[in-house]
Amino acid sequence: MTKKSLSDVELLLPEWLVPIVPDGFLPAHGVAVRDGKIVATGHHTDLRERFPEAQLTPLPGQVLLPGFVNVHTHAAMTLLRGLADDLPLMVWLREHIWPAEGRFVAPDFVRVGTRLAIAEMLRGGTTCFNDMYFFPQEAAEVAQEMGMRMVLGHVIIDFPTTYTRNAEDALRLAAEHIAILGNPALLRHSIAPHAPYTVSDGPLQEAAALARQHGSFLHMHVHETAGEVRDALARDDRRPLRRLHELGLLNERFLAVHMTQLNEDDLAICKETGLQIAHCPESNLKLGSGIAPVATLLVQGQGVGLGTDGAASNNDLDMLGELRTAALLAKGREGDPTALPAKQALYLATLGGARALGWEKETGSLEVGKAADCIAISLDHPATSPVYDPISQLVYCAGRDQVRNVWVAGVQKIQDGRALHWDDAELGREAQDWALRIARENS
Amino acid sequence: MTKKSLSDVELLLPEWLVPIVPDGFLPAHGVAVRDGKIVATGHHTDLRERFPEAQLTPLPGQVLLPGFVNVHTHAAMTLLRGLADDLPLMVWLREHIWPAEGRFVAPDFVRVGTRLAIAEMLRGGTTCFNDMYFFPQEAAEVAQEMGMRMVLGHVIIDFPTTYTRNAEDALRLAAEHIAILGNPALLRHSIAPHAPYTVSDGPLQEAAALARQHGSFLHMHVHETAGEVRDALARDDRRPLRRLHELGLLNERFLAVHMTQLNEDDLAICKETGLQIAHCPESNLKLGSGIAPVATLLVQGQGVGLGTDGAASNNDLDMLGELRTAALLAKGREGDPTALPAKQALYLATLGGARALGWEKETGSLEVGKAADCIAISLDHPATSPVYDPISQLVYCAGRDQVRNVWVAGVQKIQDGRALHWDDAELGREAQDWALRIARENS
Repeated sequence: MTKKSLSDVELLLPEWLVPIVPDGFLPAHGVAVRDGKIVATGHHTDLRERFPEAQLTPLPGQVLLPGFVNVHTHAAMTLLRGLADDLPLMVWLREHIWPAEGRFVAPDFVRVGTRLAIAEMLRGGTTCFNDMYFFPQEAAEVAQEMGMRMVLGHVIIDFPTTYTRNAEDALRLAAEHIAILGNPALLRHSIAPHAPYTVSDGPLQEAAALARQHGSFLHMHVHETAGEVRDALARDDRRPLRRLHELGLLNERFLAVHMTQLNEDDLAICKETGLQIAHCPESNLKLGSGIAPVATLLVQGQGVGLGTDGAASNNDLDMLGELRTAALLAKGREGDPTALPAKQALYLATLGGARALGWEKETGSLEVGKAADCIAISLDHPATSPVYDPISQLVYCAGRDQVRNVWVAGVQKIQDGRALHWDDAELGREAQDWALRIARENS
Repeated sequence: MTKKSLSDVELLLPEWLVPIVPDGFLPAHGVAVRDGKIVATGHHTDLRERFPEAQLTPLPGQVLLPGFVNVHTHAAMTLLRGLADDLPLMVWLREHIWPAEGRFVAPDFVRVGTRLAIAEMLRGGTTCFNDMYFFPQEAAEVAQEMGMRMVLGHVIIDFPTTYTRNAEDALRLAAEHIAILGNPALLRHSIAPHAPYTVSDGPLQEAAALARQHGSFLHMHVHETAGEVRDALARDDRRPLRRLHELGLLNERFLAVHMTQLNEDDLAICKETGLQIAHCPESNLKLGSGIAPVATLLVQGQGVGLGTDGAASNNDLDMLGELRTAALLAKGREGDPTALPAKQALYLATLGGARALGWEKETGSLEVGKAADCIAISLDHPATSPVYDPISQLVYCAGRDQVRNVWVAGVQKIQDGRALHWDDAELGREAQDWALRIARENS
């Protein structure tokens, strides 16, 4: 076999194709990829006839589907994974996470932590993520080096951090970095005011203006906990979502993360404005924050994507696990086994996420013209046997290590479970070096 | 290296030992195994000095801990995994599960399904399970062939099934099978009246007498759904748990499965009688049944183990996933991030389960004199890096495919992720043959 050139066609020929659009699964169907794009989908036989010269990549026992879209994470926080668990929220933040961040978060921390996060995400089938962390330019460089699709969230926060002195400084840096980084193929930007309780009205409106100027969107933690809502009511007699609405911030280009506390008025604001929701069920459970009413939001037509949140509060970046938790938890919350069925959960983790990030023309489904962001998951495993319906097996049984092959824009990143472009052991050692330093100071 | 004889000592030398008793983790500690029993635990150096002739099994990057104890499953239902999901409970049971069981459940179905279940459980680090299904003698034979530790639940049910005509028949068969099978090293028995709504008072009392006679225990679905409690109240003005209590059935040798619906009176009965609880959080979520108040039960000193339930309602038999769900869900249910911390969740999945089955002298912790039911989980994975605390990584991040080595009573079953005594692919083909027959009839 001669070396593949970019303009050659490659046929990915799985046992089942789950393209998301149309929904359902198609036995013995696959996709044709050229120049990183999907140029055809169809039955194996038809694809072979149409592209007789194509390179064939058989994927026996595997389901081919779009890569997962993780709509909310703090990638570099992998370095704080398991530093402190099972603590009250404010003890966890004030005595562990914030001090560690205050001492250690710097460009090298962000590079090492983001590299580990991307390695974990790609191995687990995530091909696009929306980040929110300090030193975003470092995270963007790592993502570009590793060939990962990324929305870079530029954090805006009133308070001083190791990254910015205040909101004005953060807004200036965000504009600078967007100008410098531009929009290469795999990079887009979001403006990420941290939360209603950490960003005041002026900077919020400037953040919105910056997002509009760059055709970008706002990405913000909102109504994560009951305490956040209670404190806001005590402060200015409005729930945070109401305040954001009155500031004119909410529309379909606003991604509200968490949203575990929604009353009737909040739900009406969601519906009226068409804002997007980032549902992070595992982080919300682990921190005891609450459970977003996903089934209700979907019934009223809200756009919803799934996020893992950072590794300090999950503690993994496993979208297959996250979508299973979402599917199970919605049923438990509603007392209704028909809530968030398997197909819909898989949609949220793929095209729902792509829409939430405004990137659905490029990714989120296996359709002609989109980027070949594809993953192949093997069902040859005792835990996924037998197969009546491959979508049920993906959602309710498959483990992340059954993700065998991963492509971002047609470039293979994981081949038969092995990383092609980095050394997991080396990333692990770098991370462990950081952990040793952090643990010494934290003890 | 000469071939190992049974009386040779083998040293398992992991990077960390998590023996459960004492709790916490011990770096560079391991266990010495002879004749299938643990004969010592200690620092690597001390063990090597004490047993200079021992066979050494280094487990770099791995945590050694006791195998998981799955306190409630219907193993053979793996063959119905994914047959029907996302349906209302009664549609699922009446239109899919019961008809399929009525047509297909027979000795060969139970052998093939149980074999697949045991393969899945051992690969995922479960070394002991408590079963409840028809044709239990077939399941017992498979477990003995595969060298799996098992509590065999002998189902008692009033209604006719493909296995028994009525409760009298079921009680007679249970006594017969217990007499025939006896108590070989890896087999114990439980008497398993199906549920309060499917077994009447007389057979319940006979089941209790049978359990007492054989030093066994009762194993029963109780308060799985709100509907079960409501129907019972309508029928005889008592909640099911109250009825079982008045029948004199409840004591520390009664394993109540599910228990999602517990009011103050129920909790008082639990406390007074010391009954054991089988918590099955994923099945309870998936069927929309409710969430057992595990944190409350633990505070009042109740014994609790974890179960996956059958693969038709979970849909996997993954105890690592189940204990993570239990740990996260308890926090979400209570709105308290300190509920069910990592160590306690791991305890429930091991020694808590062994106690629930009355088998804690043999299994559930790595202590001298117990059987060497050991599993080694690799943390060399991007999702479990870095390591501050290996217990946090096990509970909140590790995936079942990181279980690399598994021993039951000192006999290795899984070596570096590969099954030593069966062929996964062959089990998968047998299961798929059954699925094709069942799907044809079900469609």
